[in-house]
Amino acid sequence: MSGRLTIAGLGPGGSQLITPEVTAALAEATDVFGYGPYVARVEPREGLVKHASDNKEELKRAREALSMAEAGRDVVLVSSGDPGVFAMAAAVFEALEEDSRWHKLDIRVLPGITAMLAAAASAGAPLGHDFCAINLSDNLKPWALIEQRLQLASQADFAIALYNPRSKARPEGFAKALDVLREASCGERLVTFARAVSTQDQCIKTVTLSEARPEMADMRTVVIVGSSKTRRAGKWVYTPRRTES
Amino acid sequence: MSGRLTIAGLGPGGSQLITPEVTAALAEATDVFGYGPYVARVEPREGLVKHASDNKEELKRAREALSMAEAGRDVVLVSSGDPGVFAMAAAVFEALEEDSRWHKLDIRVLPGITAMLAAAASAGAPLGHDFCAINLSDNLKPWALIEQRLQLASQADFAIALYNPRSKARPEGFAKALDVLREASCGERLVTFARAVSTQDQCIKTVTLSEARPEMADMRTVVIVGSSKTRRAGKWVYTPRRTES
Repeated sequence: MSGRLTIAGLGPGGSQLITPEVTAALAEATDVFGYGPYVARVEPREGLVKHASDNKEELKRAREALSMAEAGRDVVLVSSGDPGVFAMAAAVFEALEEDSRWHKLDIRVLPGITAMLAAAASAGAPLGHDFCAINLSDNLKPWALIEQRLQLASQADFAIALYNPRSKARPEGFAKALDVLREASCGERLVTFARAVSTQDQCIKTVTLSEARPEMADMRTVVIVGSSKTRRAGKWVYTPRRTES
Repeated sequence: MSGRLTIAGLGPGGSQLITPEVTAALAEATDVFGYGPYVARVEPREGLVKHASDNKEELKRAREALSMAEAGRDVVLVSSGDPGVFAMAAAVFEALEEDSRWHKLDIRVLPGITAMLAAAASAGAPLGHDFCAINLSDNLKPWALIEQRLQLASQADFAIALYNPRSKARPEGFAKALDVLREASCGERLVTFARAVSTQDQCIKTVTLSEARPEMADMRTVVIVGSSKTRRAGKWVYTPRRTES
Protein backbone atom coordinates (compact mmCIF):
# COMPACT_ATOMS: atom_id res chain seq x y z
CA MET A 1 0.00 0.00 0.00
CA SER A 2 1.46 3.37 -0.94
CA GLY A 3 0.92 6.30 1.36
CA ARG A 4 0.53 9.96 0.74
CA LEU A 5 1.17 13.24 2.55
CA THR A 6 -1.17 16.18 1.93
CA ILE A 7 -0.22 19.52 3.44
CA ALA A 8 -3.50 21.40 3.66
CA GLY A 9 -4.62 24.92 4.60
CA LEU A 10 -7.76 25.25 6.72
CA GLY A 11 -8.12 28.99 6.10
CA PRO A 12 -8.21 31.55 8.90
CA GLY A 13 -10.98 30.00 11.00
CA GLY A 14 -14.46 29.86 9.52
CA SER A 15 -15.51 26.63 7.78
CA GLN A 16 -17.05 28.76 4.98
CA LEU A 17 -13.46 29.46 3.86
CA ILE A 18 -12.20 25.86 3.61
CA THR A 19 -11.80 24.87 -0.04
CA PRO A 20 -13.63 21.77 -1.36
CA GLU A 21 -10.22 20.32 -2.23
CA VAL A 22 -9.15 20.38 1.43
CA THR A 23 -12.52 19.05 2.60
CA ALA A 24 -12.14 16.11 0.18
CA ALA A 25 -8.59 15.41 1.38
CA LEU A 26 -9.77 15.30 4.99
CA ALA A 27 -12.64 12.97 4.06
CA GLU A 28 -10.17 10.44 2.59
CA ALA A 29 -7.44 10.72 5.23
CA THR A 30 -6.49 8.04 7.73
CA ASP A 31 -4.42 10.42 9.89
CA VAL A 32 -4.39 14.14 10.55
CA PHE A 33 -1.39 15.91 12.06
CA GLY A 34 -1.05 19.48 13.25
CA TYR A 35 -0.92 22.00 16.04
CA GLY A 36 -3.63 21.14 18.60
CA PRO A 37 -6.12 23.96 17.93
CA TYR A 38 -5.95 23.31 14.16
CA VAL A 39 -6.44 19.54 14.50
CA ALA A 40 -9.42 20.35 16.75
CA ARG A 41 -11.05 22.10 13.78
CA VAL A 42 -11.19 18.80 11.85
CA GLU A 43 -14.50 16.95 12.29
CA PRO A 44 -13.84 13.61 14.06
CA ARG A 45 -14.97 10.46 12.28
CA GLU A 46 -14.41 6.71 12.44
CA GLY A 47 -11.19 5.71 10.70
CA LEU A 48 -9.48 9.07 11.19
CA VAL A 49 -6.70 9.25 13.79
CA LYS A 50 -5.88 12.70 15.11
CA HIS A 51 -2.29 13.50 16.09
CA ALA A 52 -2.24 16.88 17.85
CA SER A 53 1.09 18.40 18.79
CA ASP A 54 2.50 21.47 20.43
CA ASN A 55 3.21 24.85 18.86
CA LYS A 56 7.00 24.73 18.74
CA GLU A 57 7.36 21.24 17.26
CA GLU A 58 7.03 21.90 13.52
CA LEU A 59 10.04 19.88 12.33
CA LYS A 60 9.28 16.93 14.61
CA ARG A 61 5.66 16.99 13.43
CA ALA A 62 6.77 17.15 9.79
CA ARG A 63 9.06 14.12 10.24
CA GLU A 64 6.31 12.13 11.95
CA ALA A 65 3.85 12.93 9.19
CA LEU A 66 6.40 11.97 6.51
CA SER A 67 7.21 8.68 8.32
CA MET A 68 3.56 7.77 8.61
CA ALA A 69 2.93 8.50 4.91
CA GLU A 70 5.98 6.34 4.13
CA ALA A 71 4.40 3.56 6.16
CA GLY A 72 1.42 3.62 3.80
CA ARG A 73 -1.08 5.88 5.57
CA ASP A 74 -3.06 8.69 3.91
CA VAL A 75 -1.83 11.58 6.02
CA VAL A 76 -3.07 15.17 6.07
CA LEU A 77 -0.96 17.76 7.84
CA VAL A 78 -3.10 20.81 8.58
CA SER A 79 -2.10 24.44 8.92
CA SER A 80 -4.25 27.45 9.64
CA GLY A 81 -4.54 29.84 6.69
CA ASP A 82 -2.36 28.76 3.78
CA PRO A 83 0.24 26.05 4.50
CA GLY A 84 2.81 27.86 2.33
CA VAL A 85 2.65 31.19 4.18
CA PHE A 86 4.55 31.09 7.50
CA ALA A 87 3.22 27.59 8.10
CA MET A 88 3.90 23.86 7.78
CA ALA A 89 4.79 23.39 4.08
CA ALA A 90 8.31 24.83 4.43
CA ALA A 91 8.89 22.69 7.55
CA VAL A 92 7.98 19.55 5.57
CA PHE A 93 10.44 20.40 2.80
CA GLU A 94 13.14 21.14 5.37
CA ALA A 95 12.58 17.64 6.83
CA LEU A 96 12.39 16.08 3.37
CA GLU A 97 15.70 17.66 2.36
CA GLU A 98 17.40 15.92 5.30
CA ASP A 99 16.38 12.46 4.15
CA SER A 100 16.39 11.56 0.47
CA ARG A 101 14.30 8.42 0.98
CA TRP A 102 11.33 10.78 1.41
CA HIS A 103 11.92 12.38 -2.01
CA LYS A 104 9.84 9.71 -3.74
CA LEU A 105 6.83 10.04 -1.47
CA ASP A 106 3.51 11.18 -2.92
CA ILE A 107 3.25 14.70 -1.50
CA ARG A 108 0.89 17.53 -2.39
CA VAL A 109 0.28 21.00 -0.99
CA LEU A 110 -3.30 22.35 -0.99
CA PRO A 111 -3.55 26.12 -0.68
CA GLY A 112 -5.84 27.94 1.73
CA ILE A 113 -7.11 31.46 2.41
CA THR A 114 -4.24 33.07 4.28
CA ALA A 115 -5.10 35.47 7.10
CA MET A 116 -4.13 38.68 5.28
CA LEU A 117 -6.58 37.98 2.43
CA ALA A 118 -9.51 37.42 4.79
CA ALA A 119 -8.46 40.43 6.87
CA ALA A 120 -8.18 42.64 3.79
CA ALA A 121 -11.61 41.49 2.56
CA SER A 122 -13.20 42.34 5.91
CA ALA A 123 -11.69 45.82 5.87
CA GLY A 124 -12.18 46.57 2.16
CA ALA A 125 -9.19 46.23 -0.15
CA PRO A 126 -6.02 47.50 1.57
CA LEU A 127 -3.94 44.99 -0.48
CA GLY A 128 -5.36 46.26 -3.79
CA HIS A 129 -1.97 47.48 -4.97
CA ASP A 130 1.58 46.10 -4.51
CA PHE A 131 2.17 44.68 -1.02
CA CYS A 132 4.39 42.48 1.12
CA ALA A 133 4.00 40.02 3.98
CA ILE A 134 6.45 39.96 6.88
CA ASN A 135 6.48 37.53 9.81
CA LEU A 136 7.32 39.55 12.93
CA SER A 137 8.46 36.50 14.88
CA ASP A 138 12.22 36.55 15.45
CA ASN A 139 12.33 32.92 16.58
CA LEU A 140 13.89 31.91 13.25
CA LYS A 141 15.53 35.10 11.97
CA PRO A 142 17.46 37.98 13.53
CA TRP A 143 15.44 41.01 14.63
CA ALA A 144 17.77 43.31 12.63
CA LEU A 145 16.58 41.64 9.41
CA ILE A 146 12.96 42.33 10.33
CA GLU A 147 13.75 46.01 10.92
CA GLN A 148 15.61 46.25 7.62
CA ARG A 149 12.67 44.70 5.75
CA LEU A 150 10.21 47.08 7.40
CA GLN A 151 12.37 50.02 6.33
CA LEU A 152 12.75 48.81 2.72
CA ALA A 153 9.05 47.94 2.48
CA SER A 154 8.16 51.45 3.62
CA GLN A 155 10.58 52.91 1.12
CA ALA A 156 8.98 50.81 -1.65
CA ASP A 157 5.59 52.11 -0.46
CA PHE A 158 4.15 48.62 -0.19
CA ALA A 159 1.11 47.90 1.92
CA ILE A 160 2.55 45.61 4.59
CA ALA A 161 0.82 42.61 6.15
CA LEU A 162 2.37 41.72 9.51
CA TYR A 163 1.94 38.12 10.65
CA ASN A 164 2.49 36.99 14.26
CA PRO A 165 2.82 40.58 15.46
CA ARG A 166 2.82 39.79 19.17
CA SER A 167 2.74 36.87 21.56
CA LYS A 168 3.29 36.28 25.26
CA ALA A 169 6.82 35.07 24.49
CA ARG A 170 7.54 38.13 22.30
CA PRO A 171 5.78 41.10 23.92
CA GLU A 172 8.27 43.75 22.73
CA GLY A 173 8.84 43.26 19.00
CA PHE A 174 5.63 44.77 17.72
CA ALA A 175 6.21 48.01 19.65
CA LYS A 176 9.65 48.25 18.03
CA ALA A 177 8.15 47.48 14.60
CA LEU A 178 5.63 50.31 14.98
CA ASP A 179 8.49 52.66 15.92
CA VAL A 180 10.46 51.61 12.83
CA LEU A 181 7.42 52.14 10.60
CA ARG A 182 6.65 55.56 12.11
CA GLU A 183 10.24 56.62 11.56
CA ALA A 184 10.31 55.30 7.98
CA SER A 185 6.99 56.75 6.83
CA CYS A 186 4.20 59.15 7.59
CA GLY A 187 2.18 58.69 10.79
CA GLU A 188 -1.04 59.13 8.86
CA ARG A 189 -0.81 55.71 7.18
CA LEU A 190 -3.87 53.61 7.96
CA VAL A 191 -3.28 50.49 10.04
CA THR A 192 -5.92 47.75 10.22
CA PHE A 193 -5.93 45.30 13.13
CA ALA A 194 -7.86 42.18 12.17
CA ARG A 195 -8.41 39.75 15.04
CA ALA A 196 -9.86 36.22 14.74
CA VAL A 197 -10.94 37.01 11.20
CA SER A 198 -13.77 34.90 9.73
CA THR A 199 -14.74 33.54 13.18
CA GLN A 200 -17.48 34.64 15.60
CA ASP A 201 -14.85 36.59 17.55
CA GLN A 202 -13.84 38.66 14.51
CA CYS A 203 -12.88 42.24 15.32
CA ILE A 204 -11.61 44.71 12.69
CA LYS A 205 -10.30 48.11 13.70
CA THR A 206 -8.50 50.74 11.61
CA VAL A 207 -6.45 53.57 13.11
CA THR A 208 -3.59 55.75 11.90
CA LEU A 209 0.01 54.67 12.39
CA SER A 210 0.34 57.50 14.97
CA GLU A 211 -2.60 56.08 16.90
CA ALA A 212 -1.51 52.41 16.67
CA ARG A 213 -0.58 50.84 20.03
CA PRO A 214 1.17 47.51 20.62
CA GLU A 215 -1.67 46.18 22.80
CA MET A 216 -4.08 46.43 19.85
CA ALA A 217 -2.53 43.18 18.55
CA ASP A 218 -2.25 39.71 20.02
CA MET A 219 -1.37 36.27 18.63
CA ARG A 220 -4.73 35.98 16.84
CA THR A 221 -4.26 39.30 15.02
CA VAL A 222 -2.93 40.06 11.55
CA VAL A 223 -2.01 43.71 11.00
CA ILE A 224 -2.19 45.46 7.63
CA VAL A 225 -0.22 48.69 7.38
CA GLY A 226 -1.44 50.67 4.38
CA SER A 227 0.78 52.25 1.76
CA SER A 228 0.91 56.05 1.51
CA LYS A 229 -2.07 55.80 -0.90
CA THR A 230 -4.33 53.65 1.30
CA ARG A 231 -7.47 55.60 2.15
CA ARG A 232 -10.99 55.41 3.50
CA ALA A 233 -14.14 55.26 1.39
CA GLY A 234 -17.17 55.32 3.68
CA LYS A 235 -16.55 52.65 6.29
CA TRP A 236 -14.09 50.82 4.04
CA VAL A 237 -10.30 50.98 3.74
CA TYR A 238 -8.69 50.43 0.34
CA THR A 239 -5.58 51.05 -1.73
CA PRO A 240 -6.37 52.46 -5.18
CA ARG A 241 -5.06 50.62 -8.20
CA ARG A 242 -3.66 53.77 -9.74
CA THR A 243 -0.41 55.44 -8.61
CA GLU A 244 0.79 58.60 -10.31
CA SER A 245 4.52 59.14 -10.54
CA MET B 1 -36.36 45.61 -1.38
CA SER B 2 -32.80 46.21 -0.32
CA GLY B 3 -30.02 45.10 -2.61
CA ARG B 4 -26.56 43.87 -1.93
CA LEU B 5 -23.19 43.82 -3.67
CA THR B 6 -20.85 40.88 -3.05
CA ILE B 7 -17.35 41.10 -4.50
CA ALA B 8 -16.21 37.49 -4.74
CA GLY B 9 -13.03 35.66 -5.65
CA LEU B 10 -13.34 32.54 -7.84
CA GLY B 11 -9.80 31.37 -7.15
CA PRO B 12 -7.27 30.77 -9.92
CA GLY B 13 -9.34 28.44 -12.11
CA GLY B 14 -10.27 25.06 -10.69
CA SER B 15 -13.67 24.69 -9.02
CA GLN B 16 -12.00 22.68 -6.23
CA LEU B 17 -10.55 26.01 -5.02
CA ILE B 18 -13.79 28.01 -4.80
CA THR B 19 -14.75 28.58 -1.16
CA PRO B 20 -18.20 27.45 0.07
CA GLU B 21 -18.89 31.08 0.98
CA VAL B 22 -18.51 32.17 -2.65
CA THR B 23 -20.53 29.20 -3.91
CA ALA B 24 -23.35 30.17 -1.54
CA ALA B 25 -23.24 33.81 -2.68
CA LEU B 26 -23.53 32.74 -6.32
CA ALA B 27 -26.44 30.42 -5.47
CA GLU B 28 -28.40 33.35 -4.02
CA ALA B 29 -27.48 36.01 -6.58
CA THR B 30 -29.84 37.58 -9.11
CA ASP B 31 -27.01 39.10 -11.18
CA VAL B 32 -23.36 38.33 -11.77
CA PHE B 33 -20.95 40.90 -13.21
CA GLY B 34 -17.36 40.46 -14.32
CA TYR B 35 -14.81 40.08 -17.07
CA GLY B 36 -16.19 37.68 -19.69
CA PRO B 37 -13.99 34.62 -19.00
CA TYR B 38 -14.66 34.87 -15.26
CA VAL B 39 -18.44 35.23 -15.66
CA ALA B 40 -18.28 32.18 -17.97
CA ARG B 41 -16.97 30.14 -15.00
CA VAL B 42 -20.27 30.70 -13.13
CA GLU B 43 -22.78 27.87 -13.68
CA PRO B 44 -25.86 29.28 -15.49
CA ARG B 45 -29.22 28.84 -13.79
CA GLU B 46 -32.73 30.21 -14.00
CA GLY B 47 -33.06 33.53 -12.20
CA LEU B 48 -29.40 34.47 -12.60
CA VAL B 49 -28.58 37.20 -15.13
CA LYS B 50 -25.00 37.27 -16.39
CA HIS B 51 -23.40 40.61 -17.28
CA ALA B 52 -20.06 39.94 -18.96
CA SER B 53 -17.81 42.88 -19.82
CA ASP B 54 -14.47 43.60 -21.38
CA ASN B 55 -11.07 43.54 -19.74
CA LYS B 56 -10.35 47.26 -19.53
CA GLU B 57 -13.72 48.34 -18.11
CA GLU B 58 -13.22 47.83 -14.39
CA LEU B 59 -14.57 51.19 -13.16
CA LYS B 60 -17.57 51.12 -15.51
CA ARG B 61 -18.33 47.56 -14.40
CA ALA B 62 -18.00 48.56 -10.74
CA ARG B 63 -20.45 51.45 -11.19
CA GLU B 64 -22.96 49.25 -12.98
CA ALA B 65 -22.76 46.60 -10.26
CA LEU B 66 -23.21 49.27 -7.54
CA SER B 67 -26.20 50.79 -9.38
CA MET B 68 -27.88 47.46 -9.77
CA ALA B 69 -27.39 46.63 -6.08
CA GLU B 70 -28.83 50.04 -5.25
CA ALA B 71 -31.86 49.14 -7.38
CA GLY B 72 -32.51 46.19 -5.06
CA ARG B 73 -30.79 43.29 -6.85
CA ASP B 74 -28.52 40.71 -5.20
CA VAL B 75 -25.39 41.32 -7.25
CA VAL B 76 -22.16 39.31 -7.25
CA LEU B 77 -19.14 40.84 -8.93
CA VAL B 78 -16.62 38.10 -9.67
CA SER B 79 -12.84 38.27 -9.93
CA SER B 80 -10.36 35.55 -10.65
CA GLY B 81 -8.17 34.69 -7.67
CA ASP B 82 -8.80 37.00 -4.73
CA PRO B 83 -10.87 40.14 -5.43
CA GLY B 84 -8.60 42.23 -3.20
CA VAL B 85 -5.34 41.36 -4.99
CA PHE B 86 -4.95 43.29 -8.27
CA ALA B 87 -8.64 42.78 -8.97
CA MET B 88 -12.13 44.25 -8.67
CA ALA B 89 -12.48 45.16 -4.97
CA ALA B 90 -10.28 48.27 -5.22
CA ALA B 91 -12.18 49.37 -8.36
CA VAL B 92 -15.50 49.15 -6.46
CA PHE B 93 -14.18 51.30 -3.61
CA GLU B 94 -12.82 53.83 -6.11
CA ALA B 95 -16.31 54.07 -7.65
CA LEU B 96 -17.95 54.17 -4.22
CA GLU B 97 -15.72 57.02 -3.10
CA GLU B 98 -16.99 59.11 -6.03
CA ASP B 99 -20.60 58.87 -4.96
CA SER B 100 -21.56 59.00 -1.29
CA ARG B 101 -25.07 57.65 -1.89
CA TRP B 102 -23.41 54.26 -2.34
CA HIS B 103 -21.76 54.43 1.10
CA LYS B 104 -24.87 52.96 2.76
CA LEU B 105 -25.14 49.98 0.42
CA ASP B 106 -24.79 46.45 1.81
CA ILE B 107 -21.39 45.47 0.44
CA ARG B 108 -19.17 42.52 1.34
CA VAL B 109 -15.89 41.20 -0.02
CA LEU B 110 -15.36 37.42 -0.08
CA PRO B 111 -11.72 36.34 -0.34
CA GLY B 112 -10.41 33.76 -2.77
CA ILE B 113 -7.25 31.76 -3.40
CA THR B 114 -5.02 34.25 -5.19
CA ALA B 115 -2.79 32.92 -7.99
CA MET B 116 0.51 33.12 -6.10
CA LEU B 117 -0.78 30.85 -3.31
CA ALA B 118 -1.91 28.15 -5.73
CA ALA B 119 1.30 28.54 -7.76
CA ALA B 120 3.44 28.27 -4.63
CA ALA B 121 1.55 25.16 -3.48
CA SER B 122 2.11 23.49 -6.86
CA ALA B 123 5.84 24.20 -6.73
CA GLY B 124 6.38 23.49 -3.03
CA ALA B 125 6.65 26.44 -0.65
CA PRO B 126 8.62 29.29 -2.28
CA LEU B 127 6.59 31.83 -0.24
CA GLY B 128 7.45 30.11 3.05
CA HIS B 129 9.36 33.13 4.33
CA ASP B 130 8.79 36.90 3.92
CA PHE B 131 7.61 37.87 0.42
CA CYS B 132 5.99 40.54 -1.70
CA ALA B 133 3.56 40.75 -4.61
CA ILE B 134 4.11 43.20 -7.47
CA ASN B 135 1.79 43.81 -10.42
CA LEU B 136 4.02 44.24 -13.49
CA SER B 137 1.35 46.06 -15.49
CA ASP B 138 2.22 49.71 -15.97
CA ASN B 139 -1.28 50.64 -17.12
CA LEU B 140 -2.00 52.33 -13.80
CA LYS B 141 1.44 53.20 -12.45
CA PRO B 142 4.72 54.48 -13.89
CA TRP B 143 7.27 51.88 -14.98
CA ALA B 144 9.98 53.60 -12.92
CA LEU B 145 8.03 52.76 -9.75
CA ILE B 146 7.94 49.09 -10.74
CA GLU B 147 11.70 49.07 -11.25
CA GLN B 148 12.28 50.76 -7.91
CA ARG B 149 10.08 48.22 -6.13
CA LEU B 150 11.90 45.31 -7.78
CA GLN B 151 15.22 46.74 -6.60
CA LEU B 152 14.04 47.33 -3.02
CA ALA B 153 12.36 43.90 -2.88
CA SER B 154 15.64 42.27 -3.98
CA GLN B 155 17.52 44.27 -1.39
CA ALA B 156 15.06 43.14 1.30
CA ASP B 157 15.62 39.57 0.06
CA PHE B 158 11.90 38.93 -0.30
CA ALA B 159 10.59 36.16 -2.48
CA ILE B 160 8.71 38.12 -5.17
CA ALA B 161 5.43 37.11 -6.80
CA LEU B 162 5.00 38.87 -10.14
CA TYR B 163 1.40 39.26 -11.34
CA ASN B 164 0.49 40.11 -14.95
CA PRO B 165 4.09 39.66 -16.10
CA ARG B 166 3.40 39.90 -19.81
CA SER B 167 0.57 40.51 -22.25
CA LYS B 168 0.22 41.24 -25.95
CA ALA B 169 -0.23 44.92 -25.11
CA ARG B 170 2.87 44.92 -22.87
CA PRO B 171 5.41 42.58 -24.46
CA GLU B 172 8.54 44.39 -23.20
CA GLY B 173 8.10 45.01 -19.46
CA PHE B 174 8.85 41.51 -18.23
CA ALA B 175 12.18 41.40 -20.08
CA LYS B 176 13.14 44.67 -18.40
CA ALA B 177 11.98 43.33 -15.03
CA LEU B 178 14.20 40.26 -15.41
CA ASP B 179 17.14 42.55 -16.23
CA VAL B 180 16.50 44.65 -13.13
CA LEU B 181 16.28 41.53 -10.96
CA ARG B 182 19.48 40.06 -12.43
CA GLU B 183 21.30 43.31 -11.76
CA ALA B 184 19.93 43.61 -8.21
CA SER B 185 20.57 40.04 -7.12
CA CYS B 186 22.34 36.79 -7.87
CA GLY B 187 21.53 34.97 -11.11
CA GLU B 188 21.20 31.69 -9.24
CA ARG B 189 17.90 32.65 -7.64
CA LEU B 190 15.18 30.16 -8.51
CA VAL B 191 12.32 31.44 -10.65
CA THR B 192 9.07 29.48 -10.91
CA PHE B 193 6.75 30.05 -13.88
CA ALA B 194 3.25 28.84 -13.01
CA ARG B 195 0.83 28.89 -15.93
CA ALA B 196 -2.92 28.23 -15.72
CA VAL B 197 -2.49 26.97 -12.21
CA SER B 198 -5.19 24.60 -10.82
CA THR B 199 -6.66 24.03 -14.32
CA GLN B 200 -6.14 21.16 -16.78
CA ASP B 201 -3.61 23.34 -18.63
CA GLN B 202 -1.43 23.80 -15.53
CA CYS B 203 2.30 23.98 -16.25
CA ILE B 204 4.91 24.62 -13.54
CA LYS B 205 8.54 25.17 -14.47
CA THR B 206 11.45 26.32 -12.31
CA VAL B 207 14.72 27.72 -13.72
CA THR B 208 17.42 30.02 -12.40
CA LEU B 209 17.17 33.77 -12.85
CA SER B 210 20.05 33.51 -15.36
CA GLU B 211 18.06 30.99 -17.40
CA ALA B 212 14.73 32.86 -17.20
CA ARG B 213 13.45 34.15 -20.55
CA PRO B 214 10.60 36.60 -21.17
CA GLU B 215 8.74 34.16 -23.43
CA MET B 216 8.38 31.71 -20.52
CA ALA B 217 5.53 33.92 -19.27
CA ASP B 218 2.23 34.97 -20.80
CA MET B 219 -0.93 36.56 -19.44
CA ARG B 220 -2.00 33.31 -17.74
CA THR B 221 1.30 33.03 -15.82
CA VAL B 222 2.25 34.09 -12.33
CA VAL B 223 6.00 34.19 -11.69
CA ILE B 224 7.60 33.58 -8.30
CA VAL B 225 11.18 34.77 -7.95
CA GLY B 226 12.77 33.12 -4.95
CA SER B 227 14.75 34.87 -2.26
CA SER B 228 18.48 34.17 -1.95
CA LYS B 229 17.53 31.29 0.41
CA THR B 230 15.00 29.59 -1.87
CA ARG B 231 16.22 26.11 -2.76
CA ARG B 232 15.30 22.75 -4.18
CA ALA B 233 14.40 19.66 -2.14
CA GLY B 234 13.87 16.73 -4.47
CA LYS B 235 11.45 17.95 -7.13
CA TRP B 236 10.15 20.72 -4.85
CA VAL B 237 11.12 24.39 -4.47
CA TYR B 238 10.86 26.01 -1.06
CA THR B 239 12.10 28.87 1.08
CA PRO B 240 13.24 27.74 4.55
CA ARG B 241 11.65 29.37 7.57
CA ARG B 242 15.02 30.01 9.19
CA THR B 243 17.38 32.82 8.14
CA GLU B 244 20.69 33.27 9.94
CA SER B 245 22.06 36.78 10.31
